[in-house]
Amino acid sequence: MRIHEVVLRKPVGDLPVATDFEIRERPLPDPRPGQELLVRVLYLSFDPYIGSRLRGRHMGLPAPLPGESLPGECVAEVLRSIHPDFKAGDLVAGEVGWADFGLLPAAGARRLVTVARPSTHLGVLGMPGLTAWAGVTQLARVRAGDVFSVNAAAGPVGGTAGQIARLLGARTVGIAGGAEKCALVRDIYGFDACVDYHAADWTTAYAAALGAGSTVHFENVGATLLATALSHIQIGARLVLCGLVEHYHGGPTPQVPIIPIIAKRAQVLGLVVYDFYARWGEWLDVAIPWVEEGRLRVVEDVAEGLSNAPLHFEALMLGRNRGKSLVKVAPDAP
Amino acid sequence: MRIHEVVLRKPVGDLPVATDFEIRERPLPDPRPGQELLVRVLYLSFDPYIGSRLRGRHMGLPAPLPGESLPGECVAEVLRSIHPDFKAGDLVAGEVGWADFGLLPAAGARRLVTVARPSTHLGVLGMPGLTAWAGVTQLARVRAGDVFSVNAAAGPVGGTAGQIARLLGARTVGIAGGAEKCALVRDIYGFDACVDYHAADWTTAYAAALGAGSTVHFENVGATLLATALSHIQIGARLVLCGLVEHYHGGPTPQVPIIPIIAKRAQVLGLVVYDFYARWGEWLDVAIPWVEEGRLRVVEDVAEGLSNAPLHFEALMLGRNRGKSLVKVAPDAP
Repeated sequence: MRIHEVVLRKPVGDLPVATDFEIRERPLPDPRPGQELLVRVLYLSFDPYIGSRLRGRHMGLPAPLPGESLPGECVAEVLRSIHPDFKAGDLVAGEVGWADFGLLPAAGARRLVTVARPSTHLGVLGMPGLTAWAGVTQLARVRAGDVFSVNAAAGPVGGTAGQIARLLGARTVGIAGGAEKCALVRDIYGFDACVDYHAADWTTAYAAALGAGSTVHFENVGATLLATALSHIQIGARLVLCGLVEHYHGGPTPQVPIIPIIAKRAQVLGLVVYDFYARWGEWLDVAIPWVEEGRLRVVEDVAEGLSNAPLHFEALMLGRNRGKSLVKVAPDAP
Repeated sequence: MRIHEVVLRKPVGDLPVATDFEIRERPLPDPRPGQELLVRVLYLSFDPYIGSRLRGRHMGLPAPLPGESLPGECVAEVLRSIHPDFKAGDLVAGEVGWADFGLLPAAGARRLVTVARPSTHLGVLGMPGLTAWAGVTQLARVRAGDVFSVNAAAGPVGGTAGQIARLLGARTVGIAGGAEKCALVRDIYGFDACVDYHAADWTTAYAAALGAGSTVHFENVGATLLATALSHIQIGARLVLCGLVEHYHGGPTPQVPIIPIIAKRAQVLGLVVYDFYARWGEWLDVAIPWVEEGRLRVVEDVAEGLSNAPLHFEALMLGRNRGKSLVKVAPDAP
């Protein structure tokens, strides 16, 4: 069969833009029996790390060459399986790429296990949610009474992290760019406060929202936002270093001020979500009831069709997404 | 009575130098009964933090003004006590200052409790040793099998940290400035290896000494030494941020690269020794047998007499001390 997929037409610059991409058609080989599933992609997930991945700056992986398949998590419908664990019609999640059909290694396929919409498995139940859970519960060990701060709070990692912290009894303060995102963080995600870092003098509002300072800060941005967060921690604070979207597109080596780490006896904890893939089930056990009861939400920012994927990815790179960035690849996706 | 003390003649610049100081004579008031001890100083301890303390850059404390008493730990002999816990002739340690006699608050006096020489209470059994113990055992939780890296390894904090780590079963790699200091670290302190960072291509030697990388790194220096240490950690490494002697004298805001912290899932742990003052006894219980058996050593770098204190302090600021920097204030000190 023949498929459509988005590929690079040329290597990306510091900031990937829509014109870096093109759609091509190519033949798809048959799935290897017992190893691969032939799937139809319903949704493709866009996540900030893909930006640095395309530049060869993610976890030591090489940048995809022009014309090569691009990395991306999907939810998909199994069309054909010669594997005992999967049959045609099953809904699965896994790394298929920027394509309408593809081959998914069965070993990397996660069966969808909830009544929630399939796309939820790319957001709150997907890698962003797992990342948030790992940082909040396994690294920072958030508990009742914590003052929890997180930036990029309108995004699926930050938004989910804050909601988990709140459900565990913390007071939650988000940081996001723009009034619309802040409203989402407060009104939909239910944070106690959200500060707009585009506003003049936002650090005063941030300090006021924190009160005595944060006891846990979850970092998704880097640069001056990280430095500001560090200057508002309490003694003994835990800092989760998760994402550095401000640094994914080049520029000087990302650094963090040392003095507040020492003066506040902070614990700074590096997070790589891949370490927690084996524990995805633990997160789902916690998260699925919360999602089904409506206590844990992620707003989705969905583009229709692969042809709109390049522009939608550029919007994510510019921070213009409002919630979880997705491409609805199959027009009839539920 | 009248005492001699070293004071500032003018505010210090970025790097305190001997000519910043002068000796003056002044009257000493009587000790407050039940609260203060009149003591004769035997040894005065010089520690790197005093450099930033004199510049008003230590833990938010103001810089001493010209003519004011200067901070410093001492071991001293009690001359007069109207306090039930101390009597004339007792040997104590505490903050007396850069003086030959002084008043020591009884609440801040530690009685010397070992057959080891009194000056040991300013080094391995003093604040530097407590700092090393806290970082190695309470923050990094060093255990057998760890690969332990530390810089300023010839100094009392670094040297003691490495010896504790070795006694707990770690392989120990020191970093020090110059062949003489490295010989001390290897031959006297018993580190498995020590690398001279003044040597060209020292990072290659450092990497070779570590093998697969450090599992624990104890930072006393900052700047490029910290960045180098971070680029040689293993996944899951613990980093104790203790001292930043490279930054105590001004210059740009000390920073640390973030990428290795995330990529290696490191734990970065800020250490302030004051948090562990209440647990000094725990360290002494462990350390005194080690000291008395000769298994834990600290070389001392001793100047004779208060009049030599300014030059001796300048040498410490320049990193020219060889081991624990002390001033023998009383000519007859044991």
